[in-house]
Amino acid sequence: MAATDCLAIIGVGLIGGSIGLAARRSGKYRPILGVDRDLQALQQAKVRGCIDEISDELATVAKLADIIVVCTPVDQIAAHVLTAARHCRAKTLITDSGSTKVNIVEAVERGLARKRLFIGSHPLCGSEKRGPEFARETLFDGRLVILTATELTPALAIHRATTFWESLGGRIWGMTAEDHDRTLALTSHLPHLVGSALAGLLHPGLAGFAATGFRDTTRLAAGDPNLWAAIFAENAPHVLASVKLFQDRLEDFRKAIQTNDVPVLHRLLTEAKGIRDDLGN
Amino acid sequence: MAATDCLAIIGVGLIGGSIGLAARRSGKYRPILGVDRDLQALQQAKVRGCIDEISDELATVAKLADIIVVCTPVDQIAAHVLTAARHCRAKTLITDSGSTKVNIVEAVERGLARKRLFIGSHPLCGSEKRGPEFARETLFDGRLVILTATELTPALAIHRATTFWESLGGRIWGMTAEDHDRTLALTSHLPHLVGSALAGLLHPGLAGFAATGFRDTTRLAAGDPNLWAAIFAENAPHVLASVKLFQDRLEDFRKAIQTNDVPVLHRLLTEAKGIRDDLGN
Repeated sequence: MAATDCLAIIGVGLIGGSIGLAARRSGKYRPILGVDRDLQALQQAKVRGCIDEISDELATVAKLADIIVVCTPVDQIAAHVLTAARHCRAKTLITDSGSTKVNIVEAVERGLARKRLFIGSHPLCGSEKRGPEFARETLFDGRLVILTATELTPALAIHRATTFWESLGGRIWGMTAEDHDRTLALTSHLPHLVGSALAGLLHPGLAGFAATGFRDTTRLAAGDPNLWAAIFAENAPHVLASVKLFQDRLEDFRKAIQTNDVPVLHRLLTEAKGIRDDLGN
Repeated sequence: MAATDCLAIIGVGLIGGSIGLAARRSGKYRPILGVDRDLQALQQAKVRGCIDEISDELATVAKLADIIVVCTPVDQIAAHVLTAARHCRAKTLITDSGSTKVNIVEAVERGLARKRLFIGSHPLCGSEKRGPEFARETLFDGRLVILTATELTPALAIHRATTFWESLGGRIWGMTAEDHDRTLALTSHLPHLVGSALAGLLHPGLAGFAATGFRDTTRLAAGDPNLWAAIFAENAPHVLASVKLFQDRLEDFRKAIQTNDVPVLHRLLTEAKGIRDDLGN
C-alpha cells in the first residue's frame, strides 16, 4: 500500500466536508482530521465519513498534518492559516478554499514569521447550501480550482497543491490573487448580490406568483448572510466595480423600455442570450 | 364514452404543445387541432402527439373548435383572438396563455363586434426553452393559472376556462388584468431582465469562471429575445416600476458595501434569505 498523507481540514462545512469525502475516495489521505468550533458539525462530519478524527484544537492538529486546508469564513482564514503555520512542520502544505484571495494572501504573507509552504486556493463549486450534511465526494469533479501563487510562493507549494486538488477531482488554474478577486467579483459575488436584491423585493403576498424563473434567479439568496457579508466586505473594491457595470447595463435596459426602443431591447436580450447559451446548463 | 370537446391550439410552441399533451392526457378533448405559421413546429407537435391535425388557417380551425387557446407571442395574441372570434360559433370558449394581460384583454374587448366567450388566462409555468420539442404533459400540474375576468366577461367563460385549465392539472386564481401585470412585472418580467443584464456582462474570457451560481442567476437570459422584447414593451409601465424598486434595493447594497456598513449588509442579506428560504426549491 502506498504511503498516505495526514490531512487536516479546518472548518468542516459543505466545502470542508466535501474535501474530506473526496480525499477519502482518492485513497491518498489518512487519517483525515477535522477541526471546527461547532462540535455538532464536527460530529456530523465524522458520522458522514468526511473525517476520521475530530478536534477543537487547531494547534494540536496542525502538528500532525502533512496537508492543512482552511475552509472557514473568508474573514477568519488568514488567522487560522497563521495559527496552523506556527504549529505545523516546515514541510506541511497549507492552503485554503476562500472565495476571496487578496486580503487572505496578503495577511498570511505579512504574518508568516518563517518560510512556509502556503498557497491560496479557491475551488469554484459553491452552493447556497451549508454544513457537512450537504457534503459530496463528487463536488470537485471537473471543477476549476484557482491557485493564487505570489512571488513568495515556493514552487513546491504550487506543485503539492496542484497534486492535492487534482486528487480530489479538480482542474487547476493559476492566476494572481488580484485577477482572482476581480474575476470572481463579477462571476460569483455580483450574482449573489443581484439574487439577494431581487429576492428582497418579494413581499409575502407575491410569493404564490413566483415560479421557476424567480426561483432560479434568486437561488443564491439562500446563502449564509454571515459568509456573504464577509465576502462582500473582503472584496469590496472589485464588488463595487462589478455592481457599477451591472447598474449601467440595467439602466440601458430601463431606458430602452422607457423609450420603447425595441431594436436596442432586442439587441441587449440577444447578446445576453448568446452568452448564456454558450455557457450551457 | 363521454362527449369530447374539439380543442384548437393557436401557436404550438412549448406552452401550446404542452396544452395539447395535457389535454390529451385528460381524455376530454378530441380532436386537438393545431395552427401555426411555422409548419415545422406544427409537424413536430403532431409527431410528438401534442395535436391530432394541423392547419395554417386559423379561420378554418376556429369554425370547428369548442375551445380555442391562443398561445402566440403577446404582441400577436389580441389579433389572433379577434380573428378566431370572427369565425367561431357563439358558444366557443376563447382564451390565451399570454404573459401580459391588460393590453391583450383591452384590445380584445375593444375589437369584439359580438358577445363572445372570451377570458384572458396566464399559466405560470414558463421556461427559457422554446418549441414543441420541450412540451410536457405535466407542465401545468399544480401550477397556478391566472384568469383575468372583467366586467364584460360572461360567467360562463370563467366557468368553462376554470374547468379547462383544471383538466390540464392547473390551479385557478382570479385577479384583474391590472393586478396581474403589476404582479408578474415583479415576479417574472423583472427576473428575466435582471438575468439578461447580468449575463450580458460575462465577456468570453470570464466564461470558464462562471459556476453554478452564475448559471442559475442568468438561466432566464436564454429565453427568446423576440418574445421578451414584446413582453417588456407590452407591460412597460409595470416593468419600469419594478426595475425602479430593484435599482433602489441594489443601491442599498452598494452603499452598505461602499461604507463597509456590515450591519446593514447583514440585514439586507438576512431579509433576502428569509424570503428565499420560504419559497423552497
